[in-house]
Amino acid sequence: MPFSDLRHDGRSPDKLRPVTLTRRVMKNALGSCMAEFGDTKVLCAATIEEGVPGWRKASHLGWVTAEYAMLPAATGRREKREGLRRKGRSMEIERLVGRSLRAVVDMKSLGEVTVTVDCDVIQADGGTRTASITGAWVALYDALAAWRDAGRIDRMPLTGQVAAVSIGIVDGRALLDLDYPEDSHAEVDLNLVGTADGRIVEVQGTGERITFDRQQLDRLLDLGQGGIETLCDLQRQVTHFPK
Amino acid sequence: MPFSDLRHDGRSPDKLRPVTLTRRVMKNALGSCMAEFGDTKVLCAATIEEGVPGWRKASHLGWVTAEYAMLPAATGRREKREGLRRKGRSMEIERLVGRSLRAVVDMKSLGEVTVTVDCDVIQADGGTRTASITGAWVALYDALAAWRDAGRIDRMPLTGQVAAVSIGIVDGRALLDLDYPEDSHAEVDLNLVGTADGRIVEVQGTGERITFDRQQLDRLLDLGQGGIETLCDLQRQVTHFPK
Amino acid sequence: MPFSDLRHDGRSPDKLRPVTLTRRVMKNALGSCMAEFGDTKVLCAATIEEGVPGWRKASHLGWVTAEYAMLPAATGRREKREGLRRKGRSMEIERLVGRSLRAVVDMKSLGEVTVTVDCDVIQADGGTRTASITGAWVALYDALAAWRDAGRIDRMPLTGQVAAVSIGIVDGRALLDLDYPEDSHAEVDLNLVGTADGRIVEVQGTGERITFDRQQLDRLLDLGQGGIETLCDLQRQVTHFPK
Amino acid sequence: MPFSDLRHDGRSPDKLRPVTLTRRVMKNALGSCMAEFGDTKVLCAATIEEGVPGWRKASHLGWVTAEYAMLPAATGRREKREGLRRKGRSMEIERLVGRSLRAVVDMKSLGEVTVTVDCDVIQADGGTRTASITGAWVALYDALAAWRDAGRIDRMPLTGQVAAVSIGIVDGRALLDLDYPEDSHAEVDLNLVGTADGRIVEVQGTGERITFDRQQLDRLLDLGQGGIETLCDLQRQVTHFPK
Amino acid sequence: MPFSDLRHDGRSPDKLRPVTLTRRVMKNALGSCMAEFGDTKVLCAATIEEGVPGWRKASHLGWVTAEYAMLPAATGRREKREGLRRKGRSMEIERLVGRSLRAVVDMKSLGEVTVTVDCDVIQADGGTRTASITGAWVALYDALAAWRDAGRIDRMPLTGQVAAVSIGIVDGRALLDLDYPEDSHAEVDLNLVGTADGRIVEVQGTGERITFDRQQLDRLLDLGQGGIETLCDLQRQVTHFPK
Amino acid sequence: MPFSDLRHDGRSPDKLRPVTLTRRVMKNALGSCMAEFGDTKVLCAATIEEGVPGWRKASHLGWVTAEYAMLPAATGRREKREGLRRKGRSMEIERLVGRSLRAVVDMKSLGEVTVTVDCDVIQADGGTRTASITGAWVALYDALAAWRDAGRIDRMPLTGQVAAVSIGIVDGRALLDLDYPEDSHAEVDLNLVGTADGRIVEVQGTGERITFDRQQLDRLLDLGQGGIETLCDLQRQVTHFPK
Repeated sequence: MPFSDLRHDGRSPDKLRPVTLTRRVMKNALGSCMAEFGDTKVLCAATIEEGVPGWRKASHLGWVTAEYAMLPAATGRREKREGLRRKGRSMEIERLVGRSLRAVVDMKSLGEVTVTVDCDVIQADGGTRTASITGAWVALYDALAAWRDAGRIDRMPLTGQVAAVSIGIVDGRALLDLDYPEDSHAEVDLNLVGTADGRIVEVQGTGERITFDRQQLDRLLDLGQGGIETLCDLQRQVTHFPK
Repeated sequence: MPFSDLRHDGRSPDKLRPVTLTRRVMKNALGSCMAEFGDTKVLCAATIEEGVPGWRKASHLGWVTAEYAMLPAATGRREKREGLRRKGRSMEIERLVGRSLRAVVDMKSLGEVTVTVDCDVIQADGGTRTASITGAWVALYDALAAWRDAGRIDRMPLTGQVAAVSIGIVDGRALLDLDYPEDSHAEVDLNLVGTADGRIVEVQGTGERITFDRQQLDRLLDLGQGGIETLCDLQRQVTHFPK
Repeated sequence: MPFSDLRHDGRSPDKLRPVTLTRRVMKNALGSCMAEFGDTKVLCAATIEEGVPGWRKASHLGWVTAEYAMLPAATGRREKREGLRRKGRSMEIERLVGRSLRAVVDMKSLGEVTVTVDCDVIQADGGTRTASITGAWVALYDALAAWRDAGRIDRMPLTGQVAAVSIGIVDGRALLDLDYPEDSHAEVDLNLVGTADGRIVEVQGTGERITFDRQQLDRLLDLGQGGIETLCDLQRQVTHFPK
Repeated sequence: MPFSDLRHDGRSPDKLRPVTLTRRVMKNALGSCMAEFGDTKVLCAATIEEGVPGWRKASHLGWVTAEYAMLPAATGRREKREGLRRKGRSMEIERLVGRSLRAVVDMKSLGEVTVTVDCDVIQADGGTRTASITGAWVALYDALAAWRDAGRIDRMPLTGQVAAVSIGIVDGRALLDLDYPEDSHAEVDLNLVGTADGRIVEVQGTGERITFDRQQLDRLLDLGQGGIETLCDLQRQVTHFPK
Repeated sequence: MPFSDLRHDGRSPDKLRPVTLTRRVMKNALGSCMAEFGDTKVLCAATIEEGVPGWRKASHLGWVTAEYAMLPAATGRREKREGLRRKGRSMEIERLVGRSLRAVVDMKSLGEVTVTVDCDVIQADGGTRTASITGAWVALYDALAAWRDAGRIDRMPLTGQVAAVSIGIVDGRALLDLDYPEDSHAEVDLNLVGTADGRIVEVQGTGERITFDRQQLDRLLDLGQGGIETLCDLQRQVTHFPK
Repeated sequence: MPFSDLRHDGRSPDKLRPVTLTRRVMKNALGSCMAEFGDTKVLCAATIEEGVPGWRKASHLGWVTAEYAMLPAATGRREKREGLRRKGRSMEIERLVGRSLRAVVDMKSLGEVTVTVDCDVIQADGGTRTASITGAWVALYDALAAWRDAGRIDRMPLTGQVAAVSIGIVDGRALLDLDYPEDSHAEVDLNLVGTADGRIVEVQGTGERITFDRQQLDRLLDLGQGGIETLCDLQRQVTHFPK
């Protein structure tokens, strides 16, 4: 690839940023993972509590949910803490993280407990929601493994892996895993959540400034599925989850 | 198609429900439209106010936003009014409606005004967000036309049409425009927002219970783009917007 | 009456606007009614839920309550949705609607259920609270009839009819059923809630700009009781409730 | 009157409880008054601030408003402080107090200031809203007199007096100035706000359990107007306001 | 002491303002006390309710808590009522009052009830939190005595007295019981809560403008303990609590 | 010291836990510091924004404030995020951190800007408020140094150092820098904020279960001042702030 085709940080269009998933970073949480996608850092912590929300009672099924927040100084300018009313964006993201995790949990074998995965963005440089999902799966794995090792459940209720990546069209080019400078002037922004076996859990694509056609969508999905495969490899490296 | 392949209401898989878009249903709003997709009824009202939100001031650009709410008795069981904290779902939908409309508005020729399109669900039977977007475009068209006719702007700032439809996989079959009984046991649920010329504004697909593959995604997008074409035809019939 | 004594819309002082009460306008509510007083349109929906508020538990008595809200575009200028804090005016109105309905319900034969009547103002042109009460009674009637027909109660717990009308002094003249232009410069504004047999449930009179004397109050009450009689006739026409 | 016709505290039906209006009970407020109607005690404090609410700006008119709250221990059982959402009842009362005071203030000569009268119920034994109005007028008088004496306005902007009293039907008898035991089993409850010259500012009558007829309403109004006359006499005694 | 060493109100540095503790000022509360420290007036009311907060259930222990608020007109300029979000200062004070009272209550002999002491500042002139604690103890004593006299508990669960006073460094001089003019330009501000036998319950010292050394702290504590002794004497005078 | 006098983690009573202060841990904040006191980890980030709060406008003085929050999984059991109403404890702590920092800032040379120091507890094991203050000073130093280096101010507006430590009486013994197991059964809990030259900024001592005397207080203050000296040494090591 000619030099001029490289991105502002030297990556080729189909490359992830350096990704690290560090387990057991919080002493008090049952499972935890610091997910770093370049300068984006999300601290994911999974806790398990007895009982399920009211509407799910007496179902003999468990529940998995997520919360997402940013530290005020995570971005370039201080953001007010979300107090009185959660911002729509945070709500959307935490609903997405929750749905993504639930896609790979067998609620029956989990039993009537609630797993909450908190995703707190320590530093933001684009892709916080995809780092959250990718790291949350690791924290969830650890929490469920600890729960099983403590004899609370018979077997691991995880039915597979889930990871996520952002893809976008920037200056007309399809790029994988946008950082903040790329994301902030992307024409199309797509988040893809998928499994280790190449299936899709969620796709959310938005033409913030321009509309896009089916061919462009296909190119973005190709890039995204490649990224998810790499991320799932990495999750298996740190957890030894069987392929 | 054999009789047994028809849906519970007799539709074939690629058929919309009966759709009507009734203009000028509110005396006091600059533009308004009652959008009915079968038994789903959404009252869309567009109002224009001087000024733009603080972060957009001095940009010489306009702003288009949306609000979405349900009457308490719109669904089969009474839902509490959203007071203190808006539900995440409503926020997600109103953000989607706003983004969809903004994709076809030239903010420069709109000038520093804010257009708010209120989408109030009078009756809910599946597809309230897609009916909202489709009807909101008509209300927006009427408000902007009135604004232009009042001499407030030189020309219509609409650059095109936008409409939306839901598609899903139900019992393994891809279906267009799900009603509530279909939606409530869909395996995959996808909302597609598109333009009259076949381009995509937004795609949001979720495997609530199962994951899906690229081939299934393609089938859903095909169905959705067909539906959007029909809805855009209907919008043009009621507004005489040029193709 | 000489022509010059007629009101701006051609009505004589003791005339109601054209009133229509349309039943069963919402598919999902047990009882519903669109009440139109001229251009004022209120959608009333009655739902019944098991149980009563905490303070009424174990009383073997039912409860009837109301909620009142306006669509943002119901008036000439967009009103913000009431979120965080309900406006005092809405609270006052919904408390009034609730009290008015409770005056004609036998709580003992209703049993420990809660009936909620939602009054959502679709279009506002004066008299929204009186249209709400008049329409709410029809929605309540239908919900209770359905409840009885479903075998949930032995007999209709309604002990009578209730309707409401506004009366005011405008430019020194006592007028029945003020529309918005009249209401907005009324010197005295009175809302009367009454029964079909000529008794009073509630009277609320306010001299917003001037004070008034007993003689003026008497004239307003005469006009109001005439209006309520007409409204009760209309309620009986649509419901066949026995006089 | 035979002994058995007296009320539980020995009053005849047309008698007020012992009423005292004590001025200047708060060191820091411009005007203040402790209004006592029997065991009901309301502390009224009037303060004046520069400026008027946004919607009234540039009108050259002043504004008078009120706030009403109860101390938690004011009633027989501790009431939670109204924090997050003000109760509907308090809102209704403070709106009523504000309207009542505005009826006797010349907003033009007041100028663009806002007078707030805080009515805090120290002890509640029925009639807190009528004690609030009656005492608030005295606090308002003192604040306006101080404002005038400080040279901020040329002349007293009060155009008259306003006072209020409750009347009700209890066990079939019309009674003036109900205390809590009477109020809690009243069949009809009416609050009357009037001026020293016998005119009506506001009338609010409710048949909480039974409906009432015009004749009963007349009897209640007669009693109420008698009570207001006595209260206005008392206000003049303490303030020397000219009749 | 030379005249020039006296404070602006003629007190010597180690003197309290005139203090009065008036019992039984609220008819409806189980215990109540108006605590006046000079022009500071706090109305303290203690109520007892069955049950304890959730986290203390099944402990067979009681709970004592406090609430603190100011009337809007208590200070020189009107303060907005604390609605939606309690101010940090009020929260700090009510937590302090609660902790102080709990230090002298035997929770076991109290049994599973909650005592709430409401401290409402009627007039503020410095030292509202210390007047609150000192008066709250009297209200608490009366409520517990009434509870015992009603046979609800066998013996008085109070293990001692608690009182509080403020001390500060103003213009370099250590002063006892600061009034508002002194408090508002104090360099160091210290609140001391102590018992009748000279022990400390809580000490909170802040150098708002300057820092202070151990010697200064000692001088402040000496003054404070002297003041607490006097306040405890006064509490015993009004309650006859045994030393 | 005999072995049995050591604490559960082997420390002698007058020893701090291992303390580390790591600068520049957040890419986007002007100043940041991870403060670790044993297993307690607090991320402190300082940001500077133009302008000051409304009440301080036109004073030519700057403002320094703090916010404090815990990640939900920071403690042994998941704590709900503080949304709607901040907990009293967090408010108390952030007010304390703000006051402590302000004691060593020359507001005049800072100019009309607001410095906010966010203290987010990543992991909690006792002493989070004292770690917050100690780390916040380092973050503040770095932010002010960067502000000066950017030419926004002429010279460093810090007039000294501030650090904090907790001290308590546990099982009758005075201990320095309590960890969570010690803190949770301490009889007396004291937080001391002081400067590098041995002066006191704030002292807050509470007898949660027992009261304490002057002699015990002196012993706690001695221990605390020793700890603060050590912490100030450490602050100077990492910042090279002149003694």
